[in-house]
Amino acid sequence: MHPLVPRDGNGLVLALDVGGTDIKVALQDGSGTLHGLRRLSTPRDARRPGDVVVEEVARLLADYQEQAGSVPVRSIGLVVPGLVDEVSGVGILSTNLGWRNYPFSRNVEEATGLPVAFGHDVGLAGEAEMRLGAGRGLRDAVVMVIGTGIAGALFCDGRRVHGGGFAGEIGHAPVAGGIPCACGASGCLETVASAGAIARRYTELTGVPVSGAREVLAAAAAGNTDAARIWNEAVEALAAVVASITAVLGSEAVIFGGGLSQAGSALLDPVARLVDSRLSFHRRPRLLSSVLGQDAGLTGAALRARDLLAATA
Amino acid sequence: MHPLVPRDGNGLVLALDVGGTDIKVALQDGSGTLHGLRRLSTPRDARRPGDVVVEEVARLLADYQEQAGSVPVRSIGLVVPGLVDEVSGVGILSTNLGWRNYPFSRNVEEATGLPVAFGHDVGLAGEAEMRLGAGRGLRDAVVMVIGTGIAGALFCDGRRVHGGGFAGEIGHAPVAGGIPCACGASGCLETVASAGAIARRYTELTGVPVSGAREVLAAAAAGNTDAARIWNEAVEALAAVVASITAVLGSEAVIFGGGLSQAGSALLDPVARLVDSRLSFHRRPRLLSSVLGQDAGLTGAALRARDLLAATA
Repeated sequence: MHPLVPRDGNGLVLALDVGGTDIKVALQDGSGTLHGLRRLSTPRDARRPGDVVVEEVARLLADYQEQAGSVPVRSIGLVVPGLVDEVSGVGILSTNLGWRNYPFSRNVEEATGLPVAFGHDVGLAGEAEMRLGAGRGLRDAVVMVIGTGIAGALFCDGRRVHGGGFAGEIGHAPVAGGIPCACGASGCLETVASAGAIARRYTELTGVPVSGAREVLAAAAAGNTDAARIWNEAVEALAAVVASITAVLGSEAVIFGGGLSQAGSALLDPVARLVDSRLSFHRRPRLLSSVLGQDAGLTGAALRARDLLAATA
Repeated sequence: MHPLVPRDGNGLVLALDVGGTDIKVALQDGSGTLHGLRRLSTPRDARRPGDVVVEEVARLLADYQEQAGSVPVRSIGLVVPGLVDEVSGVGILSTNLGWRNYPFSRNVEEATGLPVAFGHDVGLAGEAEMRLGAGRGLRDAVVMVIGTGIAGALFCDGRRVHGGGFAGEIGHAPVAGGIPCACGASGCLETVASAGAIARRYTELTGVPVSGAREVLAAAAAGNTDAARIWNEAVEALAAVVASITAVLGSEAVIFGGGLSQAGSALLDPVARLVDSRLSFHRRPRLLSSVLGQDAGLTGAALRARDLLAATA
């Protein structure tokens, strides 16, 4: 673990990004630097799925406070997946982690005695990207995180769109094709265009197992026509949804994060060409890669925890 | 012209909805009632396309003030089509009416001496529908006006989305098919699903001229398979775009206005069924018909003009 070196007198905030597999946790100092970034397995208990997370947060706070010595940890930023009510601080639903209407803010505040900023993982990752990353200075942008699935955050007129907790579900925007999705619908974007779908569909088509979408892209680049077909279908589906969303929202940019965005221009260039061919008088969205990468969620949690201090100062 | 009967002491506002063919104009009293609604041809002058509208506004103000007698007209609400910057009060572009970066607010204020609220016709029609019509009490909704073309206004978290003046262009969201659009792109929703497109495509397919989309719907209902095909393609394209937008924005409702919405359940029911089949865990948007109908733009202009008085009171 890195030494903890707070830079100024604003104190520390503890940031936690709870995922389906791991919890990422770090302290952030007043300069915005993350300290002591760790990754731990997400605790699971089918009977008490929220409580075990809250207990882990309290334990981690004690750990980090001990290491920070006399510099106080003053607030906590916590982000989780699923449907989230950020105003009331409730995790409405995580099918993966199992909670339903769990009052995270209240319970973490009771367990730790600190004020808690609570939010949606991709939503706050998007906020961080807009405030400190590829979206700096933009008012109208879409952040898309493409990994096992596809999730997003929408920013319009300088504000994130909440839609009662339902906004941003870009992975479940309908596209042509009609492949059944785990969500129960058919033809969701992420059945064709997520990194997971690209790998899975290539294996289904060819019988050849691959480690991930990156291998499919490499095969396509080497002339494998099956790989090229799967890759191109993903690109076309992404372009259709990006063109549709940005045409309607007037977005200035789309910022790609998650594993698939590491493909860089091999992904962004063909998507940009197709998007461009579908638009006319519209704003042309710039397609950008995430700057904050995997730490975006943690940084977003920390920013919100710090906002809380500023608001109550 | 109706007698002008203001109901209370808040005075009158003059509301004008400038369209490609007509200007609609009326006074609104403090109770929200419109008085003396008239429709006049939109004045056109290729060399001075904005100026002739401003001159007409000043002339109409004098007319209406004379008829209102001692009750003062205290502000003006003006809505226009095209790209609009509502903050600076500028008509950025109307390809139809011909202006480009024309300072409507400033020039109308100079010509009349009254404060001016200036906005986009469909945007402010949508605001009126949300404040007084089918969208009352909703925070997340899409207003779609389907006539010769298709235009829209998006409401997220209780606010209209502006997107730098580019938001709401639902008619130019891309759909499958690829029919060339007047905007320069191909496959825009309005090439298949506007009232104008439905009539035009039926005539192209059959050689039979029709007065409008209503006639195509009647023919489809009477068993004409060509008419049914054109109508169903419109319904499918609308459903695809509605499902996509509402899935991503988390909309509670879609409110349909314009000529095609007069088809009522013949339009809304099949669109609702298709939208429903494309969604899973999402919010299910209710599909509603506009309550304010053709006066929505005028009412929106009046509301904004009145907001201006409240803000400066």
